[in-house]
Amino acid sequence: MDWRENVRRVEPYVPGEQPNKKNMVKLNTNECPYPPAPGVEKLAREFDCDNLRLYPDPSSKVLVDALAQYYHVSPEQVFVGVGSDDVLAMCFLTFFNSDKPILFPDVTYSFYDVWAQLYRIPFKTCSLAEDFSLVAEDYMQPNGGIIFPNPNAPTGVMESLDTIRQILDANRNVPVIVDEAYIDFGGVSCLPLLEEYDNLLVVQTFSKSRAMAGCRIGFAIGSKEMIGYLNDVKFSFNSYTMNRPSLILGVEAIRDKEYFEKTVAKIIATRERVKKELTDLGFHFPDAKANFIFASHERVPAQEIFQALKERDIYVRYWNKPRIHNYLRITIGTDEEMDQLLAFLKEYLRGR
Amino acid sequence: MDWRENVRRVEPYVPGEQPNKKNMVKLNTNECPYPPAPGVEKLAREFDCDNLRLYPDPSSKVLVDALAQYYHVSPEQVFVGVGSDDVLAMCFLTFFNSDKPILFPDVTYSFYDVWAQLYRIPFKTCSLAEDFSLVAEDYMQPNGGIIFPNPNAPTGVMESLDTIRQILDANRNVPVIVDEAYIDFGGVSCLPLLEEYDNLLVVQTFSKSRAMAGCRIGFAIGSKEMIGYLNDVKFSFNSYTMNRPSLILGVEAIRDKEYFEKTVAKIIATRERVKKELTDLGFHFPDAKANFIFASHERVPAQEIFQALKERDIYVRYWNKPRIHNYLRITIGTDEEMDQLLAFLKEYLRGR
Repeated sequence: MDWRENVRRVEPYVPGEQPNKKNMVKLNTNECPYPPAPGVEKLAREFDCDNLRLYPDPSSKVLVDALAQYYHVSPEQVFVGVGSDDVLAMCFLTFFNSDKPILFPDVTYSFYDVWAQLYRIPFKTCSLAEDFSLVAEDYMQPNGGIIFPNPNAPTGVMESLDTIRQILDANRNVPVIVDEAYIDFGGVSCLPLLEEYDNLLVVQTFSKSRAMAGCRIGFAIGSKEMIGYLNDVKFSFNSYTMNRPSLILGVEAIRDKEYFEKTVAKIIATRERVKKELTDLGFHFPDAKANFIFASHERVPAQEIFQALKERDIYVRYWNKPRIHNYLRITIGTDEEMDQLLAFLKEYLRGR
Repeated sequence: MDWRENVRRVEPYVPGEQPNKKNMVKLNTNECPYPPAPGVEKLAREFDCDNLRLYPDPSSKVLVDALAQYYHVSPEQVFVGVGSDDVLAMCFLTFFNSDKPILFPDVTYSFYDVWAQLYRIPFKTCSLAEDFSLVAEDYMQPNGGIIFPNPNAPTGVMESLDTIRQILDANRNVPVIVDEAYIDFGGVSCLPLLEEYDNLLVVQTFSKSRAMAGCRIGFAIGSKEMIGYLNDVKFSFNSYTMNRPSLILGVEAIRDKEYFEKTVAKIIATRERVKKELTDLGFHFPDAKANFIFASHERVPAQEIFQALKERDIYVRYWNKPRIHNYLRITIGTDEEMDQLLAFLKEYLRGR
């Protein structure tokens, strides 16, 4: 016998590269190209460091209340965690304990199968249609729960509330989690459906539209009952997950609605312009409703473009995986960053 | 069938009260009474908020390197997490996967059985001796792993390296985790034993001696192999657990050795003085080697003292649990705070 025998062996998730070069163009991890709300900086300057000696509020009340107010729900319907990854991992642990497999798309956020393996949850993937849209009927087979992002990652494809409602109607007896990390960039949230479905949980994040990836804040909104179970598991894991800086700066990021709307509008405008330019360069892509475009070129393999971009310190994301090995996921940066990308692509593709 | 059927039901851990009253004396959660190192405040003032839009470094390199340098180990031997609770929960998930029960003391940190239940790990508790010391022989039965704090919580009792070595020698084939949350207050760390035992993991925290409970930073030091397995599980859970403020402020807290040593020396001096005064008031306690004293009164029941203190906004910790229901855990605060406590006790006990 050896201590190694009972170690939980996992295939760890590999996060996107975090290069840190001067003058690089970083379009690989869907971060926001604009800084957080100006009030965040102001609060950081005034932050009372002496208080760091004290534990944070385990209930994260200030942040939960700010979110409840913003989304017009009760504070008991809000759960916060260390980024939406922490929230989703807690959801897997809390809600997915059936012997039947949970269902999610074959092309989707790469963490779902990692969490399923980590917690030994049986799972089955459902193939997206040729155009990368969800096939609602596939989610009508027996299952132990359902999860999908909307818009989907890394495709950027948005499903309608009608499709989600179909899936919910066929699955009233299992938890259904909709991962809305990218919903603010032109999508329609299914938060209003919470009134009808007590088995629905909606997860969102501060890392994209709220420019706070560095603070690690994610949240879930659902029925009081679901949020209660989540909190029980969270309190069995770690009472104090959200640190004091996150709580204080997070509240300010959610409060400044005007700045948020302005930032998101700028990103959407840039995305729509880049869509046209990429099309002119011979790229095609599913209609992008997130802060990224999932693009494939008519002639040049994605992996070659990926390498060529990297050599010029322009970072995008590429996966050598079935169905998507000829696509690049390009985050929407500032107009200047996108111009650098487009200028390089124009020149590079001319020579190919 | 109903979605509730497969919910993971747990008895959540109840953290110490976090009252927030003006003029209260808060001696209930073992926080440091002194602020973090002065450099922490300076760095917070200079913090580049624009960077909050970017994900933190998933490997937490700056903090891992600072810890490795401080403790004279390789960076590959260091794992960091969101407080030692996060680190310990990851340890339970990673290392305790045997069918045999893990072993820990009957009187100990209340989170151990919570994590075991959360992850459905079989466990067995071993009774401490009458004086609350560990009985090494009890840890020589077949088991799936061992964990204990040193000094123990909430008793404050310190075990010698000899006792720990005995336990390690009898358990070369299972993971042995020593939780040294309170080691800096006069204990002897078992870090030097890492060279001999590749199945030993030592866990520490920034929340006590480093006055950073509000930042949520804990760490583990062990063999490269153990740390590697821990990182694999962590990366399967959440790539970015440590946020940017924690990483930056944490480095400064570990760098300032002089301030750290001064702070710890002050707390120890206060503790030694309070020990004498409590003895004079009719309290007895196991020798305290942590930043708290676990005290019982010769005449007045602990629960009554606890309530009387609370009514004066003096908060200490009390558990109505077997073996310890007549003890109070009193955190060492500033000299002024302890004087308030002692003055009240003097008066209160005279009237009883």
